[in-house]
Amino acid sequence: MKLAIFVNITREKALELARELTVWLDARSIDYVFDPQSAKSLGSGKWEEKADLSQHCDAFVSLGGDGTLLLASHYSRSKPVVGINVGDLGFLTEFNPDEMWTAMDHLVSGNYAIHTRSQLEATLESGEMLTSLNDVIIEKGSASRRLPAFTILLDDEMLGSYRADGIIIATSTGSTAYSMSAGGPIIAPKSNVFVITPICPHMLTVRPIVISDDKTVKVSVDSHSGEFPLKMDGIQKKLLLPGEVVTVKKSPYHINLVANEKRNYCEILRKKLLWSHEHPTGE
Amino acid sequence: MKLAIFVNITREKALELARELTVWLDARSIDYVFDPQSAKSLGSGKWEEKADLSQHCDAFVSLGGDGTLLLASHYSRSKPVVGINVGDLGFLTEFNPDEMWTAMDHLVSGNYAIHTRSQLEATLESGEMLTSLNDVIIEKGSASRRLPAFTILLDDEMLGSYRADGIIIATSTGSTAYSMSAGGPIIAPKSNVFVITPICPHMLTVRPIVISDDKTVKVSVDSHSGEFPLKMDGIQKKLLLPGEVVTVKKSPYHINLVANEKRNYCEILRKKLLWSHEHPTGE
Amino acid sequence: MKLAIFVNITREKALELARELTVWLDARSIDYVFDPQSAKSLGSGKWEEKADLSQHCDAFVSLGGDGTLLLASHYSRSKPVVGINVGDLGFLTEFNPDEMWTAMDHLVSGNYAIHTRSQLEATLESGEMLTSLNDVIIEKGSASRRLPAFTILLDDEMLGSYRADGIIIATSTGSTAYSMSAGGPIIAPKSNVFVITPICPHMLTVRPIVISDDKTVKVSVDSHSGEFPLKMDGIQKKLLLPGEVVTVKKSPYHINLVANEKRNYCEILRKKLLWSHEHPTGE
Amino acid sequence: MKLAIFVNITREKALELARELTVWLDARSIDYVFDPQSAKSLGSGKWEEKADLSQHCDAFVSLGGDGTLLLASHYSRSKPVVGINVGDLGFLTEFNPDEMWTAMDHLVSGNYAIHTRSQLEATLESGEMLTSLNDVIIEKGSASRRLPAFTILLDDEMLGSYRADGIIIATSTGSTAYSMSAGGPIIAPKSNVFVITPICPHMLTVRPIVISDDKTVKVSVDSHSGEFPLKMDGIQKKLLLPGEVVTVKKSPYHINLVANEKRNYCEILRKKLLWSHEHPTGE
Repeated sequence: MKLAIFVNITREKALELARELTVWLDARSIDYVFDPQSAKSLGSGKWEEKADLSQHCDAFVSLGGDGTLLLASHYSRSKPVVGINVGDLGFLTEFNPDEMWTAMDHLVSGNYAIHTRSQLEATLESGEMLTSLNDVIIEKGSASRRLPAFTILLDDEMLGSYRADGIIIATSTGSTAYSMSAGGPIIAPKSNVFVITPICPHMLTVRPIVISDDKTVKVSVDSHSGEFPLKMDGIQKKLLLPGEVVTVKKSPYHINLVANEKRNYCEILRKKLLWSHEHPTGE
Repeated sequence: MKLAIFVNITREKALELARELTVWLDARSIDYVFDPQSAKSLGSGKWEEKADLSQHCDAFVSLGGDGTLLLASHYSRSKPVVGINVGDLGFLTEFNPDEMWTAMDHLVSGNYAIHTRSQLEATLESGEMLTSLNDVIIEKGSASRRLPAFTILLDDEMLGSYRADGIIIATSTGSTAYSMSAGGPIIAPKSNVFVITPICPHMLTVRPIVISDDKTVKVSVDSHSGEFPLKMDGIQKKLLLPGEVVTVKKSPYHINLVANEKRNYCEILRKKLLWSHEHPTGE
Repeated sequence: MKLAIFVNITREKALELARELTVWLDARSIDYVFDPQSAKSLGSGKWEEKADLSQHCDAFVSLGGDGTLLLASHYSRSKPVVGINVGDLGFLTEFNPDEMWTAMDHLVSGNYAIHTRSQLEATLESGEMLTSLNDVIIEKGSASRRLPAFTILLDDEMLGSYRADGIIIATSTGSTAYSMSAGGPIIAPKSNVFVITPICPHMLTVRPIVISDDKTVKVSVDSHSGEFPLKMDGIQKKLLLPGEVVTVKKSPYHINLVANEKRNYCEILRKKLLWSHEHPTGE
Repeated sequence: MKLAIFVNITREKALELARELTVWLDARSIDYVFDPQSAKSLGSGKWEEKADLSQHCDAFVSLGGDGTLLLASHYSRSKPVVGINVGDLGFLTEFNPDEMWTAMDHLVSGNYAIHTRSQLEATLESGEMLTSLNDVIIEKGSASRRLPAFTILLDDEMLGSYRADGIIIATSTGSTAYSMSAGGPIIAPKSNVFVITPICPHMLTVRPIVISDDKTVKVSVDSHSGEFPLKMDGIQKKLLLPGEVVTVKKSPYHINLVANEKRNYCEILRKKLLWSHEHPTGE
């Protein structure tokens, strides 16, 4: 068995857990490699290029927060991913540091359940394909004063065309990330839907729209000029030209998260969104 | 063949269409009955109790708006329903008056497509079951100054408990009705999800949550006293006591709307929500 | 000097503080009375009718939360009000229990600053006038299925008429109460504006509107029948008839809150709204 | 008398009106100049640098939409501005083309009322001062994946610090522009307040906050690196460095709009926001 380990190198706690984990793995003669950046920070010689990890490793371990796991997920393909959070509980990183050893025991013994998460696949006109776990985002860019219009087709039917700061197409996993900041609803896992959430639309009647995940969404930007960032999970991947069509649909590949059986989605939601605290005044 | 006809008796245009329709049906020797209220307004002796209509009729015709069709749907069971709107285009009433004869031709000849719409079923502790096409709503009632808390379980897991003016559980059909006024997302038909939308929650982090339609939602009201209206499609059906649990899930019965093939959901959405008009200033 | 004391009798901590306060006052030969309900709970013979308190007392003390202070404010007129909170920090109750003695020292010695808060005055067609510190609310009532329309005039100009669950007219003080639950903005104290916030409007383009506090707002309910609750600070005062006009403007009377100089509004806002905690995912 | 004329050169109707206006002015021997761009499009030799116009001209005329008037307002200082819209009614451009001649008659005869509009003044650490009629916007820029935090001080008190896509500080005039797209309230003219509206904040409890226009707002961006666009009325003016403080307050200069006495704000609001059309379903 061989593990791929991603570490949030800006968090001392994550680096510390990584060192403890290697001792634990060495003691059990379990092989492992880091992604290059993590290896460098840890002074470890055991690393491989990120793109090679899924081919050579049997499982992935992420030590950090949801962002680190998001990064690991871009390389894990169908391999199981264990997410250990080093700060607050995450939506994706279901294990606290003190649950790490139990999680590792289960991973090594193959005694674990999987939470399958859908991904989005964006295809450019060039044929290039990109994948994301949270969302596909197309933004207005830094262009001119006048906002561009975003045209959206749903299974080749015109859904709408409106000026906005951008458009988010999010999975249920991504519904509690950027889409929520832009006013989108929470989508429970395993709902088999995506949500198209406008960012600051110039039309007051435009609302987030939830669609079945068997739909194909095509987005293009109407503008005379300019370049429009295409972001996958918040990372800029391309600059789109006016009129260039991005085709977004469900990816055939899933992310397989190792589940923490002690925790359920409702509990995580309540904790993350602080549903124990009432805000407006009154007694 | 026998038709059941519901008319919005407050709209002269609807009554006029009803009279024209009876002439058309008589000429073709097609049998029909009205619901009692419509018959009375039209001075027609052809009526049956609403509860008997689905048993004796082969199809339903609604002449009015989405509200009239909503009423008809409470009695239509699995029989096909043709919705003719007499005012603006409706989300449910897909045919304009000038498309009525084509719609009727297709209905009579059996040459039509069906849009199947899911319904919700609410079960009370007494065992009584209620059905709705749009939504199940539980409200704060007129009680005391202090708002009650609504406790929500999702497949018997605690989702949350918070004070609010009420809770809406809506189908995709109902997503553009009351749920939207309360800030809920649009849900495209055939998405196989419901949305739980809070009404004016006292907690700023509570958001609409979209769930798979195979989930069971249990709602109860935490309060020392008071009575809390349970509404199905906006019509008050019961007053709930504190602690009384309402169990909401997908109904085994669907509404079968006769489809207008010239129209698609995206087009209706764009028209109803005026997505051709930009609101904020700027040129 | 004579104090009027209001206690949240459902909170043991508040009753305890009340007992301690009476000992403290007795020791200093400072006179006091309770409102009738508080006196009864405390077994005290020192009480007066609420309506008489402002005439006979020099200052008001509220032991409880914002709700208790809201109640006291309905009787305090221009007399200074000290708000001691017994639970979480309040928007109005600026003193914690351990700051009570300092607050009382300052009150008794006349050594304190005042935060003046505007109130709203609602005048009915009968000439009856009602006052509120937070808000004037007109609701749909329990009437029929079809929502009533609310017609709003601003200085006798038609602002709009739309169907909704209700209308809130809130002061800056009330902006963090019910108006916020309905989607209204926060209004900092001393802004000299009110906000008109619709409750679940049936028109997607209706938004909260902020107006200068020298404006007069007239609201009436368009409906064939029904009774529509008029609430002042959340307490139902009247049932309005269709077409009955409520005239709302700034009250000539202010509430004078004794200020906690150790605390400022920004700090209270940050604490009450938990602006130290980030919700959506990401690291 | 001498007029400064700004034209939306992308609209044929505006160019046409400009030509008609020059004939009308020539016939009355009233002097006029265009801004350089408009003069070029019209093939006119009568132009001056925009920065010189307020010094040499007695009044400004804007032919276009709200955007053209916004541009003119950047150079008009205290001189009266007549806004003729060539498309839909604008929030700022109160005269339709067929009302132009009446408006011009009144302007020339000095027989008109003024609507005074407040402006914002942003001061950079360098001492440079910028002015805007609608809003001051600070954005996240194109930087890194992790959003920067925006720190906001109100009269040197910490209001909050949170990650977001940006911050808008808007006047009442700007409240129906970008701020509204980001969820801000409508602010009626002459309310003497500004609104601070967050753009897609990462904290669900952050809301637009309305403040008195005698407050000073200081905004800075917390980030390790990056450049953050500062936009005045949507036009990028500077790139801010991390930690650089922008001080925003009410400008001592007002914009003086020539009022259309046949029109009032409520009417414009109702028309622009389509408050005659109901969106959600139901009859």
